[in-house]
Amino acid sequence: MSEPSRRPRLQLILPYSQPRGALYQGGSTDGPKETRLPNYDMVAPLLADVAWDLHPGPIGPHGPGGVETREEFAIVGVQRLPIVREACESGRYDAIVMLGGGDPGFQEGREIGRRYGIPVTACANAQMHIATMLGNKFSIIDISETHNMSAYYLVVQYRFTAQCASIRNIDFPLPRPGFIDDRPLAAEQPKLQRGETSPMLEAAVTEAVAAIEEDGAEVIMLGCSAAFWLRPHLQQRLAAMGWDVPVLEGYSAAIAQAKLLTGLGVAASGLALPVDRPKKWRRKKTF
Amino acid sequence: MSEPSRRPRLQLILPYSQPRGALYQGGSTDGPKETRLPNYDMVAPLLADVAWDLHPGPIGPHGPGGVETREEFAIVGVQRLPIVREACESGRYDAIVMLGGGDPGFQEGREIGRRYGIPVTACANAQMHIATMLGNKFSIIDISETHNMSAYYLVVQYRFTAQCASIRNIDFPLPRPGFIDDRPLAAEQPKLQRGETSPMLEAAVTEAVAAIEEDGAEVIMLGCSAAFWLRPHLQQRLAAMGWDVPVLEGYSAAIAQAKLLTGLGVAASGLALPVDRPKKWRRKKTF
Amino acid sequence: MSEPSRRPRLQLILPYSQPRGALYQGGSTDGPKETRLPNYDMVAPLLADVAWDLHPGPIGPHGPGGVETREEFAIVGVQRLPIVREACESGRYDAIVMLGGGDPGFQEGREIGRRYGIPVTACANAQMHIATMLGNKFSIIDISETHNMSAYYLVVQYRFTAQCASIRNIDFPLPRPGFIDDRPLAAEQPKLQRGETSPMLEAAVTEAVAAIEEDGAEVIMLGCSAAFWLRPHLQQRLAAMGWDVPVLEGYSAAIAQAKLLTGLGVAASGLALPVDRPKKWRRKKTF
Amino acid sequence: MSEPSRRPRLQLILPYSQPRGALYQGGSTDGPKETRLPNYDMVAPLLADVAWDLHPGPIGPHGPGGVETREEFAIVGVQRLPIVREACESGRYDAIVMLGGGDPGFQEGREIGRRYGIPVTACANAQMHIATMLGNKFSIIDISETHNMSAYYLVVQYRFTAQCASIRNIDFPLPRPGFIDDRPLAAEQPKLQRGETSPMLEAAVTEAVAAIEEDGAEVIMLGCSAAFWLRPHLQQRLAAMGWDVPVLEGYSAAIAQAKLLTGLGVAASGLALPVDRPKKWRRKKTF
Amino acid sequence: MSEPSRRPRLQLILPYSQPRGALYQGGSTDGPKETRLPNYDMVAPLLADVAWDLHPGPIGPHGPGGVETREEFAIVGVQRLPIVREACESGRYDAIVMLGGGDPGFQEGREIGRRYGIPVTACANAQMHIATMLGNKFSIIDISETHNMSAYYLVVQYRFTAQCASIRNIDFPLPRPGFIDDRPLAAEQPKLQRGETSPMLEAAVTEAVAAIEEDGAEVIMLGCSAAFWLRPHLQQRLAAMGWDVPVLEGYSAAIAQAKLLTGLGVAASGLALPVDRPKKWRRKKTF
Amino acid sequence: MSEPSRRPRLQLILPYSQPRGALYQGGSTDGPKETRLPNYDMVAPLLADVAWDLHPGPIGPHGPGGVETREEFAIVGVQRLPIVREACESGRYDAIVMLGGGDPGFQEGREIGRRYGIPVTACANAQMHIATMLGNKFSIIDISETHNMSAYYLVVQYRFTAQCASIRNIDFPLPRPGFIDDRPLAAEQPKLQRGETSPMLEAAVTEAVAAIEEDGAEVIMLGCSAAFWLRPHLQQRLAAMGWDVPVLEGYSAAIAQAKLLTGLGVAASGLALPVDRPKKWRRKKTF
Repeated sequence: MSEPSRRPRLQLILPYSQPRGALYQGGSTDGPKETRLPNYDMVAPLLADVAWDLHPGPIGPHGPGGVETREEFAIVGVQRLPIVREACESGRYDAIVMLGGGDPGFQEGREIGRRYGIPVTACANAQMHIATMLGNKFSIIDISETHNMSAYYLVVQYRFTAQCASIRNIDFPLPRPGFIDDRPLAAEQPKLQRGETSPMLEAAVTEAVAAIEEDGAEVIMLGCSAAFWLRPHLQQRLAAMGWDVPVLEGYSAAIAQAKLLTGLGVAASGLALPVDRPKKWRRKKTF
Repeated sequence: MSEPSRRPRLQLILPYSQPRGALYQGGSTDGPKETRLPNYDMVAPLLADVAWDLHPGPIGPHGPGGVETREEFAIVGVQRLPIVREACESGRYDAIVMLGGGDPGFQEGREIGRRYGIPVTACANAQMHIATMLGNKFSIIDISETHNMSAYYLVVQYRFTAQCASIRNIDFPLPRPGFIDDRPLAAEQPKLQRGETSPMLEAAVTEAVAAIEEDGAEVIMLGCSAAFWLRPHLQQRLAAMGWDVPVLEGYSAAIAQAKLLTGLGVAASGLALPVDRPKKWRRKKTF
Repeated sequence: MSEPSRRPRLQLILPYSQPRGALYQGGSTDGPKETRLPNYDMVAPLLADVAWDLHPGPIGPHGPGGVETREEFAIVGVQRLPIVREACESGRYDAIVMLGGGDPGFQEGREIGRRYGIPVTACANAQMHIATMLGNKFSIIDISETHNMSAYYLVVQYRFTAQCASIRNIDFPLPRPGFIDDRPLAAEQPKLQRGETSPMLEAAVTEAVAAIEEDGAEVIMLGCSAAFWLRPHLQQRLAAMGWDVPVLEGYSAAIAQAKLLTGLGVAASGLALPVDRPKKWRRKKTF
Repeated sequence: MSEPSRRPRLQLILPYSQPRGALYQGGSTDGPKETRLPNYDMVAPLLADVAWDLHPGPIGPHGPGGVETREEFAIVGVQRLPIVREACESGRYDAIVMLGGGDPGFQEGREIGRRYGIPVTACANAQMHIATMLGNKFSIIDISETHNMSAYYLVVQYRFTAQCASIRNIDFPLPRPGFIDDRPLAAEQPKLQRGETSPMLEAAVTEAVAAIEEDGAEVIMLGCSAAFWLRPHLQQRLAAMGWDVPVLEGYSAAIAQAKLLTGLGVAASGLALPVDRPKKWRRKKTF
Repeated sequence: MSEPSRRPRLQLILPYSQPRGALYQGGSTDGPKETRLPNYDMVAPLLADVAWDLHPGPIGPHGPGGVETREEFAIVGVQRLPIVREACESGRYDAIVMLGGGDPGFQEGREIGRRYGIPVTACANAQMHIATMLGNKFSIIDISETHNMSAYYLVVQYRFTAQCASIRNIDFPLPRPGFIDDRPLAAEQPKLQRGETSPMLEAAVTEAVAAIEEDGAEVIMLGCSAAFWLRPHLQQRLAAMGWDVPVLEGYSAAIAQAKLLTGLGVAASGLALPVDRPKKWRRKKTF
Repeated sequence: MSEPSRRPRLQLILPYSQPRGALYQGGSTDGPKETRLPNYDMVAPLLADVAWDLHPGPIGPHGPGGVETREEFAIVGVQRLPIVREACESGRYDAIVMLGGGDPGFQEGREIGRRYGIPVTACANAQMHIATMLGNKFSIIDISETHNMSAYYLVVQYRFTAQCASIRNIDFPLPRPGFIDDRPLAAEQPKLQRGETSPMLEAAVTEAVAAIEEDGAEVIMLGCSAAFWLRPHLQQRLAAMGWDVPVLEGYSAAIAQAKLLTGLGVAASGLALPVDRPKKWRRKKTF
């Protein structure tokens, strides 16, 4: 029997770090990486046999709110690219995991990583690929009208329109200066942890059931990383109702996909993401 | 009979301006707007009944070469957004035309424009919409493997995969530091103007005919703005061969579409590009 | 600055003129063209900078009712073709606008126009093209089961099935001999003009909202020309509810598209609509 | 065992009859129906257990040439409708077979027939349905650029774009005043009957093989009725080359489909082709 | 006039025969073939002009219940293949009709039949082909969640996903050891024959109406052969409500298709179902 | 940091074992599992951190040749199911990997595995999922016309038709009694190992290049397990030509996917593969 291969080394990158005092904090900004990685316990088993680092992501210029519009996603996406390049150039990683919903900078990050032979994964992309391994159609549960449309364009871009049954909105938008939220998103997970009812979870259950019964979903995935904590709870609730439907979240999906690609030694096709002067070029491309 | 409506006011924005000494110059950087707008004579009739300004675009940080990779497009796209916003806020324009191939920043620019009720158009997007008015399928003639893949992802994103017969490569990439080009792109239009044969035009004719005969193209459009000057020449050459096929280029298409949208008083659907906290939201989205 | 181009000259053709005493009159049959063109004020700004004539269309042999079945559309369509040909041969027009819902004779009219280099547009076709410029999916509000199926086949023929969210029926059919209508279609616009509630508008609001909330429509267009008057009212009602959704109607769409095509100097691809003995032919066609 | 059912009674309708002296004659205009039906021997077994009449079709106003443009198809299609209605009203037929390539008037004829519970079939439509019973993809061999585009639009209209591998052109157009044909279409079948080589058959073999090898065709069908005589010869030639590929032609396909529908007692769905005031209507239609 | 062709000879094969004492019996296992063929009177007219035999199918190893899971379908499918081969080798049949819902063994049976030039048909496949002749979209009414998923995969495999509006479940599963059914499937047809209300028929009416009104179905077909008896009753009920929608069932559809294919003398394309060492092979296949 | 998770335990199942004296041997039938697993060295790194067993598969009744027809695949597929069930029931495995091309018994095996919460993977399915992670389109290189059509139907069944650029045939069929092969498949790998040219590899290079240049493939996968040994050689050859295209093979893909699914703790959706009497059922399913 051959020797166990070296443990793969992953660079995890958070979507963006908020300045102090921001309305929305994706996780703790201090302490060990396990503390700074939101919902670490959900992914701990997947990280147990890898070496990993956690980058806090860029400090967004978008102010104290979250990232929801296309403009905000584009800006943050571009800001993440130097982090990806630096990780590739460091020689310290076998794969890069771009955490966060909406996949800001993912395609450009993959383009960079591929030049180094390093696979790059992202949370929405990974979930969609894995969802289609499990069922005929999947639905996305996401937090707000604007974020849902970001998910919509990702489904188009990744060419999963035929497999996506629907995108369902639970209407818990990210905080935004100038708006006061009756039911702030950030209060929901603590409620559940205190044993209280979380309206956010209730909305997710309602929309997941509607996705199953009305839209044809056979797998559920989550859109915004601020909703990833729902996964085990939503899974348990659906199971209790008799619905045998896998529920995915983005961190575990993106990490698992990074491990798969590392295991196979593949990053991405050079034809899909060509360098600026490739050795070979094609006369035509078709769809 | 009613009074002629006020002439629509258009802000044209060049894709990016190169620093002095750059390898690639999209057009003159001095003089009146007619001089600074490449191939002005091709669009002069369309601009005759509008008021228009020309913005030089951002000075790209991407160095002295052109924009071809996904990363470069993303960076320039984000840099163009403040220009779009400023134009919207100025109150001086009825529509914004984002010139250039590859449409950097277009969707985000439309998102911004829509909030002001101002339509925003772009060259690849406009050509695809108009091409499908004219024939069953269109092909894109583009300049390099990398730029062709940018066009590829635009076709996916704009959902024209069923109408795009092919993307054809004529292999005249933008100049790039570190590479010496046997046949520099920038020398081609002058060759033709001197009455010489242009290999770039010859390649375009060859690929357009292949697109027609092999791929099913019924309309031809051009990808990179550095190839837009080919339009009348390619059109004439195809006609001389007996192929009655419209050839489009991006400046006229984007300007014409901006005029159409202005005439109808529409910018974009608020559901396609929602603001961060829209008045109404939908429980679900489907494809 | 170049001289303003000559004002484009448009021939507008009404779908058909009814014999005196008919049950359904699309508009006044006497007076100046502005009077004879239904809902002239909705399109007046678009016509302000063009020269235009109005042809009353053929006198349909289909009797005193409207045109709704496929047979009726086919017959009227063929009857309109000599009018198109005559307009082309006259040399007096730069574009032809075939008014009316259901686009009778449109593809054949385009075929004729193309031989003269004259673009021909039609109301459903133009609306669909423009709708996809504005949002991801559109729905059609139409007046009756039979007319809705006409719209259905147009969507198939024009290959917009992936973009059409739904066709919604408000059940105000055209008058037809032998049927007495409780709520005659022709009485609806006058009701609104008198400040009364129009059940037809109410039905359109109901179905438009259902199209948005249930079917995924991001743009609304109108099917039958007898419903085009609803446009500003439906637009206003949706806006008042908080739905930021463009509402289109056919006359302005077809006129605007005719102006766009005239501005670009293109009619249609000779490959899509070949003459009987074209100079060049293709060995194969694909989809 | 039950009694044999009454032999179904079919009304066959030729596409159109040419005036005397016309350039193109689809078949003899005199004599018994077996003589007037082109290639009768190819369909004789299928007609052996039915009762049938043959209508010569309308005398086309399109002059002494054939029908190839969209305008010509539309005109002839409308002219065939009174023949269909008369056959339905006569009570003498169980099904109507609209012979000819290009299916002029088919959808409108079906609409009429359905009101009487009488199925109506047509040659291109029937071939496409049967072709998909036999293989994954079919190609159409057709006679001219213009006729091929008619076939193209039928494939779109009948929604077989995913199953149609290609439409292949053998360039033997119908005769047309003002054009002298080097190799007149009408001379081809006689050549083969005299034991000579038919360039038309050779072209069909070449294109069928290309359709199989390059386009993915697994079944071959024929477009224009002027090419239906090729069927057994093309079938035999392909078989001799080792290609085990069914070749269809329109008369037998349309007759066989008419017998199938008659046997099942079905004509068409009332929802697909509604009467002008149907008993029930649907709020929405989707694709 | 030619002689009537010889009556085609059909081998009908029941899906499987249950051992004595089984929970579910598809029909009588004794007596003449007319008695052993369930719902014989529904297909008697179609069988009146053919010669036919009835094979009882394999005795399934799946125990005393029915066949619903994918595993059960695969096992029974393989068991049917020797019966198909024997029928082909006997030289006594012109076509083979594989009765039953779910089409177990159909593609493999077609592969066998094609080698002998003998068409093979099956109930779901035939219904789908015929349904698309009648309307734009069809829905399937089927008996249980598990059986519905079998239908689902058949729609995918036969490539009718674009034409299938929905699969609707009436929840009358086949009997299965270990489960006691409140309302056993087998009791439903007798109820109706006694003039009582059948909840199974009521559920079918409810789901068919929902398929029409909500899903866009224009034709209804039935999934499991245990539901085929519903056809005339469901047809009558829908007609009484004003819905002019054809309802199909599998036996008549598969027999009618077998007659059509026999009449045309075609079985299947050798390219779709190649023998193990075909004379000719293709370098590539595409979709 | 958490403890490393227990090493996942995989049951690998060979497609089928040949009787002694068979024409085709997939691998050694004696010795340790590493010897009996063909091309073990290609997957050794992936197996280094798992526990695994190897089952020889059923002894096929199909005689001394290989499995290529649909009938043969169906028979072997059913024969593999008791092996899958036994592995599930044993409690000794976390995932099951059904080795071999053509995926015989895969969907039924997944159905069985899912009841035990055990993921089941297969070589073609896994390659397709992974291929779409790497590029826009993939092509399959396969060994014979018949095997290629098996791959074709898998692509349809798994719904990758939009992502599969082509299936390319290198014409090295499995041995079959009654046929003598000029260039036996089994001699090819040894040739290469001896440093000779392998026509099979040369054909694979030719077809892979054609797939890239003509069909749009951006990733290459291999169909039959008898071709999996080509992977590193084909990869190296393409790279040497300048084509930066990942080449996949089935064993590593299926093992990697099994590890991914095990890591995430998911098998398959209960809605996609329902048990015979599921707790919950859906009224409708859509596509």
